Amino acid sequence: MENRRVVLAERPRGRLGASTTRLESGERPACAEGEALIRVGMLSIDATIRTWMDDAPGYLPPIELGGVVRGAGAGVVVESRTPRYAVGDVVVGMTGWQEWTLATDEVRFSVVPVGLGLDLATVMNVLGVTGVTAWVGVREVGGLREGDTVVVSAAGGATGSVAGQLAREGGARTVIGIAGGPEKCQEVVETYRFDACLDYREANLAARLREACPQGVDLYFDNVGGAVLDAVLANLAMHARVALCGAIAQYDGAERQGLLNTAALITRRGTMRGFIVLDYLEHFARVQGELAAMVRAGRLAHREHLVEGLDRAPDALSMLLRGENHGKTLVVVDPAVTLA
Amino acid sequence: MENRRVVLAERPRGRLGASTTRLESGERPACAEGEALIRVGMLSIDATIRTWMDDAPGYLPPIELGGVVRGAGAGVVVESRTPRYAVGDVVVGMTGWQEWTLATDEVRFSVVPVGLGLDLATVMNVLGVTGVTAWVGVREVGGLREGDTVVVSAAGGATGSVAGQLAREGGARTVIGIAGGPEKCQEVVETYRFDACLDYREANLAARLREACPQGVDLYFDNVGGAVLDAVLANLAMHARVALCGAIAQYDGAERQGLLNTAALITRRGTMRGFIVLDYLEHFARVQGELAAMVRAGRLAHREHLVEGLDRAPDALSMLLRGENHGKTLVVVDPAVTLA
Repeated sequence: MENRRVVLAERPRGRLGASTTRLESGERPACAEGEALIRVGMLSIDATIRTWMDDAPGYLPPIELGGVVRGAGAGVVVESRTPRYAVGDVVVGMTGWQEWTLATDEVRFSVVPVGLGLDLATVMNVLGVTGVTAWVGVREVGGLREGDTVVVSAAGGATGSVAGQLAREGGARTVIGIAGGPEKCQEVVETYRFDACLDYREANLAARLREACPQGVDLYFDNVGGAVLDAVLANLAMHARVALCGAIAQYDGAERQGLLNTAALITRRGTMRGFIVLDYLEHFARVQGELAAMVRAGRLAHREHLVEGLDRAPDALSMLLRGENHGKTLVVVDPAVTLA
Repeated sequence: MENRRVVLAERPRGRLGASTTRLESGERPACAEGEALIRVGMLSIDATIRTWMDDAPGYLPPIELGGVVRGAGAGVVVESRTPRYAVGDVVVGMTGWQEWTLATDEVRFSVVPVGLGLDLATVMNVLGVTGVTAWVGVREVGGLREGDTVVVSAAGGATGSVAGQLAREGGARTVIGIAGGPEKCQEVVETYRFDACLDYREANLAARLREACPQGVDLYFDNVGGAVLDAVLANLAMHARVALCGAIAQYDGAERQGLLNTAALITRRGTMRGFIVLDYLEHFARVQGELAAMVRAGRLAHREHLVEGLDRAPDALSMLLRGENHGKTLVVVDPAVTLA
C-alpha cells in the first residue's frame, strides 16, 4: 500500500522554493512487534520546522536530505502490536509529513483522551505544542505577575494569541499585541481581546510602544526576534522579563537585524531567557487540562487555518513564514480522522 | 578656601574631547549641622561615568551641564557635625571629581574600618564597587556552579580580573579571559592566572572560543557587549548564563554592533541578565570581608593604575575607555589621604 510523503530535496537558501521539498511515494511501513501503525489525519505547521531544514546546529538535528520532513501531527491507530495503543485511538506526536507512520519504542505518541468535547483541529491548536508553549512562556519563563504590562509578538499566531489570553487570565493589567498588517491587528483586538495591537510594518514601533506602555514592558513574549525585539528592549520596565520563544523574523532568509538595545537589560535589570517547550514535558498534562477547560468555558478564543492536502504542506509552511495565516496552521491529510 | 573641581562643560559626541570637561575653582563647601566635610584623596575611574555624561535615560540621571562630574572616591573627614563620622575617618562614596565634598543626609559615605591591613588603593580597587560587582556577577547573577567553563571579557580590567579569580575560587573548571592586545592577554594569564586569554582584536574570535571551550560556555561575565558578546553567544553551553555587567564597547561613540546570535539563547535554553551592583547593597559588607581575606591570604591578585592629579581625571577616563589601563584606574587627588 502506498505512503505518500514530502521529503527534503535540498537545503533552502533563504525562502522556501519549489525545489526545497518533493512529494514522493513509498511503501506503507509494516507494523512489527511492539509497534503501532498510524494513519495520519492532520499536520501541525510550525515555524520551527524551517530551522530544521538548515544544516545548522539546533535543539534537534537537521532533517536529512531525502528524509521525510519532520513535524508534529495527529492520526488514528489502525493496527497495534503493543499494549500502549488500541486500534481506534487518536494520537498526536511526530508524524512527519506523510500519510502513514509508526509508533515505536523510540517514537512515542500521546493518546488524545476521549470525551474532551473538542474537535481535532482545536486539540491540535490549543492543546498542542503551541498552546503549551504559550503557557510555559507566560507562566514559567516569563513569571507573570499580577498587574504586569505584557507584550506579545506574532500576536495573531497560534502561540501568541494564546499567550496574550493566558496573560490576561493570569492577572496582567495591560496586554499589547504586535502583528503584521491592519487586518491581523484588528483580529488580535477583536477576537483575542488584547487591549491594543501595534502593526510592526508601520514606522516607529519603539515610539508607539512607549505610548501604549507608558510604564514600560514588564513581560515580553517574543516569537520574532530582530527589529521587533529591539524595539521592545528599548521600552523595558525595571526587572522586565523577556521570554524568547522563537525568532521567526530570522528563519526564512530574511536579512538578519542585529540587536542594538541589549544594554537596556543592564540599566533595567532585565532578564532575557530562551526556552524550548520540550523541556517542560512534565507540565503538559496539567496545562492541557487547564487549556481545555478554558476553551469549553468560552474563555479562550482560538482559530484554525486549515489547508487541504498533504501536497500543500510546503505551501502552508511558506504561508506561515510570510505571516499570511490566520490562527493555527494545520494541513488536513485525511479528513476521515476525527475525534469521537 | 578653594575647591578645584572638574565639571561637565558639554555632552560628548562620541569620544571624550578636550572641551567635554572643564577644571574650575569654587568655594570650599561649608559644613552645616548634620554634615561632615571631606577632603578627597582618591577617585575611582569607572566606565559607567561615561554613560552618565550622555543626555539619555539610565540607571541614574545624566550629569547636569556645568555640574561636577559624578564618581566614586575616597577621602578623610576633616570636620564633622554629625555623630555618623569622626574627624580622621577615611570614607568612600560619591565624592565627585573635586577636592572637597560634604557628607549629608542624602549623600552618605561608608567608613573604611581601621586595621584592614590594606592600602587605600587596594581598598578602592578590590573592596570598591568593581570588586563587589565581580562577586555579584559571578555568584548571584551568573550562578556559578562547580565545573563551569567561565568566560570573562575585559579580563585585564578591575572587575574582570577579580571575576575570573572568584570563578576559579568558586569551583570553575576552566576560566578563559578576553582582552585587547597580546600584552594584556599575557597579564591576564600570568598575573590573574586565567587558563587562557583571547585577544578580541584578532580575527575569528568565535572560532577561537570554540577551540578554547569545546564543551561550550556555561557562564559568561560580560563587560563589553557588541561583537565580543555576539561571539560568546555563538558558543553557549546548554543552560548557559550570561551576566551583563557593562557594555563598554558601546559607551564612547564606537560604532554600535548589533547582536546577531541571541536566538542561541533559545536553542541553548540560555539566560541573559543585566545587573547593577547598587541593587546588592546588602551584600557589600560580607563580600568586602571575603575579598579582603582573599587579598591578605595572597589568593587574589590585583593591580592599580594610579594617575596623579585631579586635572588628569578626564584623561584617566579616556585611557580606561580606550582600554589602555592596567588594572584599576585611580586618580590621586591628595596623596596625604591614606589608611592608617
